[in-house]
Amino acid sequence: MAPRLTIAVDAMGGDQAPGMVIRGLGMAHKRHPEAHFLVYGDERLVTPLLRRRFKKSPDSITLHHTSERVADTDKPSVALRAGRNTSMRLAIDAVADGKASGVVSAGNTGALMVMSKMVLKTLEGIDRPAIASMVPTMRGEGVMLDLGANIQCDANNLVQFALMGDVFARTVLGIEKPSVGILNVGEEDLKGHEILKEAAAMLRDPGLPISFQGFVEGNDIWAGNVDVAVTDGFTGNVALKTAEGVARLYAGMVRLSFRSSLLARLGYLLARPGLAKFRNRVDPRRYNGAMFLGLNGIAIKSHGGTDAFGFANAISVAVDMVAQGFNQRIIDDLKRFSDSLNAPRKAAI
Amino acid sequence: MAPRLTIAVDAMGGDQAPGMVIRGLGMAHKRHPEAHFLVYGDERLVTPLLRRRFKKSPDSITLHHTSERVADTDKPSVALRAGRNTSMRLAIDAVADGKASGVVSAGNTGALMVMSKMVLKTLEGIDRPAIASMVPTMRGEGVMLDLGANIQCDANNLVQFALMGDVFARTVLGIEKPSVGILNVGEEDLKGHEILKEAAAMLRDPGLPISFQGFVEGNDIWAGNVDVAVTDGFTGNVALKTAEGVARLYAGMVRLSFRSSLLARLGYLLARPGLAKFRNRVDPRRYNGAMFLGLNGIAIKSHGGTDAFGFANAISVAVDMVAQGFNQRIIDDLKRFSDSLNAPRKAAI
Repeated sequence: MAPRLTIAVDAMGGDQAPGMVIRGLGMAHKRHPEAHFLVYGDERLVTPLLRRRFKKSPDSITLHHTSERVADTDKPSVALRAGRNTSMRLAIDAVADGKASGVVSAGNTGALMVMSKMVLKTLEGIDRPAIASMVPTMRGEGVMLDLGANIQCDANNLVQFALMGDVFARTVLGIEKPSVGILNVGEEDLKGHEILKEAAAMLRDPGLPISFQGFVEGNDIWAGNVDVAVTDGFTGNVALKTAEGVARLYAGMVRLSFRSSLLARLGYLLARPGLAKFRNRVDPRRYNGAMFLGLNGIAIKSHGGTDAFGFANAISVAVDMVAQGFNQRIIDDLKRFSDSLNAPRKAAI
Repeated sequence: MAPRLTIAVDAMGGDQAPGMVIRGLGMAHKRHPEAHFLVYGDERLVTPLLRRRFKKSPDSITLHHTSERVADTDKPSVALRAGRNTSMRLAIDAVADGKASGVVSAGNTGALMVMSKMVLKTLEGIDRPAIASMVPTMRGEGVMLDLGANIQCDANNLVQFALMGDVFARTVLGIEKPSVGILNVGEEDLKGHEILKEAAAMLRDPGLPISFQGFVEGNDIWAGNVDVAVTDGFTGNVALKTAEGVARLYAGMVRLSFRSSLLARLGYLLARPGLAKFRNRVDPRRYNGAMFLGLNGIAIKSHGGTDAFGFANAISVAVDMVAQGFNQRIIDDLKRFSDSLNAPRKAAI
């Protein structure tokens, strides 16, 4: 049996791996001294990095050597068949074998998703895993899912995503009673997609342990009107990338404004401490880590282009999820939900 | 036959109507002295506003009295059945009757869409109209469609949207050879929706008079990687509202930053002229006006909460589209496309 809090780390995934990964691991180790890390990668590259980062090799970090890795260009199906000795696969296997409770990788997204799904399998009661991400909102932080694991979903999938998003908001974001909404279009007469209506009807079940707000629109999560936004992976992927695109456009234009004159540059210097707070609030590294929810084990995909700080944040998400018993809570909620669906109903008065 | 450039204006639609509409009309009149405007609304309210705005009543503005209007709360189906004498309907009728070439309203979106579609009917060769909007991009401006007219679309619909978006980018945005993409998700292995693949295959036809870029992601239009982003109305609606939500979040946080200290306030004063340029670039009033494309006549929905400047911009879009022969160009492009599809192909070498 694994010690309670062990995380497997793919040292070889990401644009700057393994250097970025080991630096991030160093930060995560300081934040979570109670955690144990199993590191998978090429010892010729990783050992010197670990030595440089840690004066004396800490007991809580164990390196497992492999010279193979999944390339960013590998097709997921190829990685699955031929990548049994890659650092990514071995890190996932560690979770499947009970040696670790979670895995973090900044490598090939498709490969990580396909291998995690095949190796870890879905949680009992969950038909399909979903990709979730934290997002900044006017009121703090929210969570959106699915962001691309399932381009088409049925009502049951969406209900399960809603439950998983709710548990994530409670455990990782610390929101006591998160409000949950299903993304839909605004016009009453156009409100469509029978599947969404079906899912909403199921989520309105009074026995369900979540605070369901009904349909919400694309702007509601950012406004903080809802804490959990549920959608299919196609819409969620487009929405998340739209948000990233708009954020970059705005950041770029604000930057240009400050360069537009000498006075503007001076103004920037004076306003910098205030602006730093804003930049910190929307720093993509703070929201680094796409969570694959619904698997037997925690699997976190760090952005491939992130730096050590971003990778440390992805590890922190994995640690939080494990420490909070994320998966057990989902299993409990699913059970309460199915009990409620099967319970005899009181007649309406 | 109508004079070449006549626009019908619903004076009674919008939160601040008719005052806002008539002020906006005043601005539009100055911008487009060549245009004629047919104004539909309650003469007791509108006549004094026109008198205040125009020292002497210009020949190019004609008021048509009606005391009825579509309320924001009216269901589109009810407006269609019972709203034959509303200002919105009479303005649409003016286009159907050939008295005007376009209609602009800041009223009930659903009602305007349903009535325009029923009264104006779709252009020959267009199966379904689409809602389009201009958006700010890193390189200038782009256009996205459909934004909610059709929550489900087949491949033909998407191809027609692509052609209409291309013509819009050329005529209104002045982009010589706009690049056109279909919104899709990023992961190769997930690339789905057979309908999207079908539409892409059709748009790759070498006889097609557009520059098709294939699939693009949610961030690409904002980055200026593509000028026209084509999607179904469900995805487009969620994406547009996501963009609005993120833009508001960023604007709100930048504002807060500048209020965070005295120095930051001073910095804001110095940087203000530069920031004003940025604000101007992303001013939602600049992008006011959702275009209903694909009807026999130009129909523009102004945002209900806009001010006179925003409404004037919506009128300008209508004037541009009429002046540029928007609909005729679509008809011509559709014809070239169907000729190309029917033409015998040379064998590949």
